[in-house]
Amino acid sequence: MTRIAELLPRVCTKTFDKPPSNPRTTWREKNTFLVFVRTEGGEIGVGEVWCEALSPAVLAAFVRDEMAPLFRGADIEDMERLWQIGFDRTRVSAKPGLALSVLGAVETALWDLTGKRHGRPLYRLLGACRDRVDVYASGGLYGEDNTPARLADEMAGYVRRGFRAVKMKVGGKSLAEDMARVAAVREAIGPDIRLMVDAVYMLDGSSALRMARALDRLDIWFLEAPLAPGDLTGLRRLTARSPVPIAGNEVAFGLDSYRDLIVEGGIDVVHLDVNQCGGIGEARRIAALAAAFHRPVSFHSATSAVCFAANLHVAASLANTESVEYHCVHQMLFDQVPADRYPLVDGAVVLPDAPGLGIDIDPCSLREV
Amino acid sequence: MTRIAELLPRVCTKTFDKPPSNPRTTWREKNTFLVFVRTEGGEIGVGEVWCEALSPAVLAAFVRDEMAPLFRGADIEDMERLWQIGFDRTRVSAKPGLALSVLGAVETALWDLTGKRHGRPLYRLLGACRDRVDVYASGGLYGEDNTPARLADEMAGYVRRGFRAVKMKVGGKSLAEDMARVAAVREAIGPDIRLMVDAVYMLDGSSALRMARALDRLDIWFLEAPLAPGDLTGLRRLTARSPVPIAGNEVAFGLDSYRDLIVEGGIDVVHLDVNQCGGIGEARRIAALAAAFHRPVSFHSATSAVCFAANLHVAASLANTESVEYHCVHQMLFDQVPADRYPLVDGAVVLPDAPGLGIDIDPCSLREV
Repeated sequence: MTRIAELLPRVCTKTFDKPPSNPRTTWREKNTFLVFVRTEGGEIGVGEVWCEALSPAVLAAFVRDEMAPLFRGADIEDMERLWQIGFDRTRVSAKPGLALSVLGAVETALWDLTGKRHGRPLYRLLGACRDRVDVYASGGLYGEDNTPARLADEMAGYVRRGFRAVKMKVGGKSLAEDMARVAAVREAIGPDIRLMVDAVYMLDGSSALRMARALDRLDIWFLEAPLAPGDLTGLRRLTARSPVPIAGNEVAFGLDSYRDLIVEGGIDVVHLDVNQCGGIGEARRIAALAAAFHRPVSFHSATSAVCFAANLHVAASLANTESVEYHCVHQMLFDQVPADRYPLVDGAVVLPDAPGLGIDIDPCSLREV
Repeated sequence: MTRIAELLPRVCTKTFDKPPSNPRTTWREKNTFLVFVRTEGGEIGVGEVWCEALSPAVLAAFVRDEMAPLFRGADIEDMERLWQIGFDRTRVSAKPGLALSVLGAVETALWDLTGKRHGRPLYRLLGACRDRVDVYASGGLYGEDNTPARLADEMAGYVRRGFRAVKMKVGGKSLAEDMARVAAVREAIGPDIRLMVDAVYMLDGSSALRMARALDRLDIWFLEAPLAPGDLTGLRRLTARSPVPIAGNEVAFGLDSYRDLIVEGGIDVVHLDVNQCGGIGEARRIAALAAAFHRPVSFHSATSAVCFAANLHVAASLANTESVEYHCVHQMLFDQVPADRYPLVDGAVVLPDAPGLGIDIDPCSLREV
């Protein structure tokens, strides 16, 4: 029995000299919120909460007041039991999103501990499906001086670095301006590179349909998050008419939401983040649901090395993984892993041999909150 | 790296002095077909193929000719990759049922090896949800001298042994005779014990509806397998009208079948067997699909201790487990596990502490085939 001694909420903040923007957000600073689990024997596991733009103090209070009492003294292997208790306590409330992202972080830390305990990389302990995972370079944000030409340079740069798929933002300018941006990128990267676009939930139904039809001639792999997260009927109408596959919704959490996105919304690519959807078990359940409806899954990752590692390991355990996002703007705590930890080979990241998530960050090196 | 040296197909045959019958089958003998996986280091893992009434020679040839070349030399942790290759090779063919049940046995053996390697019971390595699993006593078959009174005695005997749920067969006699049998059992076990009935795919739509309506007054937990396995539209019509929850189909295999049973057929209880549906990974995917549609899962087990152990461990890793079948007629190789291995406490079996599946059978003790 390996007992949990404590949950340690920690935060790391990055400030931007040149604030990047997507159509919804301009970042002057960005937080990564981590939950470390320390066992009675002093071992450390880690998971991240992706709960964009929520005060770290809110998350820390939730961890301390609502989650820590549940996990303290429990065995690290009881991860599904603990997760279910935590979920049941919060599901009849307004807080399931908060609960699922925090529960997911803690459960991820328990898997990290289990991997370290057995000296095995997490994806191999889950039953490996692959040793490398296709990734795409994610960037192409907006910015005051980000002309189509500069944007095209940026995206072509990712291709020169070895990426074979890239993703950029749309939905932040007029359709004509956005199409000029996408066309410049397609021209710069050539016809053989996958190009995805992300509208960050900015469009209404008619605008999304117009954009999907305009994008068709530019060979777009998927249009991500065209509509507001809750617009399920709009999504159904759009997926029935769009010539471009629709991906969504990385901000969703829980199996129920994904059932509705697939069965009601008709999404083509199931987009999720282990650090938001509910953790490793829930991500794998969502992927199983997607497999039952013959949909690929693509993993979001837009904060730290912990977030990336969790998504990468789950992705490597699944048959229906399409890709993992390799964010080229939001890269926090990557200085805490060895420089050669995630080698890019033929457009894929090779999974590391290190046990667990392969992350060793000292919680004392981060800000207590 | 722990390399697979060989797959060893083995069979164990039991002959009956007094052949038991369900509405489809009378057993004069019954086979248990096991696949042992031996690593280069000589470690042994085991899984069972539940492929009722198929010649062991057919299964052995399939293991040797189609599966062994795929697994030989591979690492035991690559279970999902190997499973997917095996599945992809066979899915565009008439053999996916055969392939899935055999792949499931081999993959189960790899999980057994992994559990033994790390010295952990399998359900804890999968992320434990519970340490005991509700079981039901399964019996109540037909037989020449099996009068309603004798049947009632048998079922009441299970309750005296500590079971709190029991299952019996229906569909083998006239509706009036079957109702007399079920009523005698309900009378004998009292109102507080769960009573399930299994029609073993024997009824047509109208007979099934008549039976479901007749069963209603006897407080039946579920009616299992009323219709022929492929009658999906019949199932949809029945589940829309039956006052009794419908369970099915333990003979199904693969995620696609279960998606259709749930979404099209509308089954209330998802009934599956790790040893038929495709193994531990596929059983967990099916359970995730069931969870997405808020359906409980109930595990079939009607052959050996290996079959029971595999279902028990998966059941203990899941939140939406309802029960595991504890068969009181078909009990093979239970003499190969310690007598106190599966203690019954409050109607549940307590999971064993032994590593892997908790089974140590010497393949040399069984018949080569």
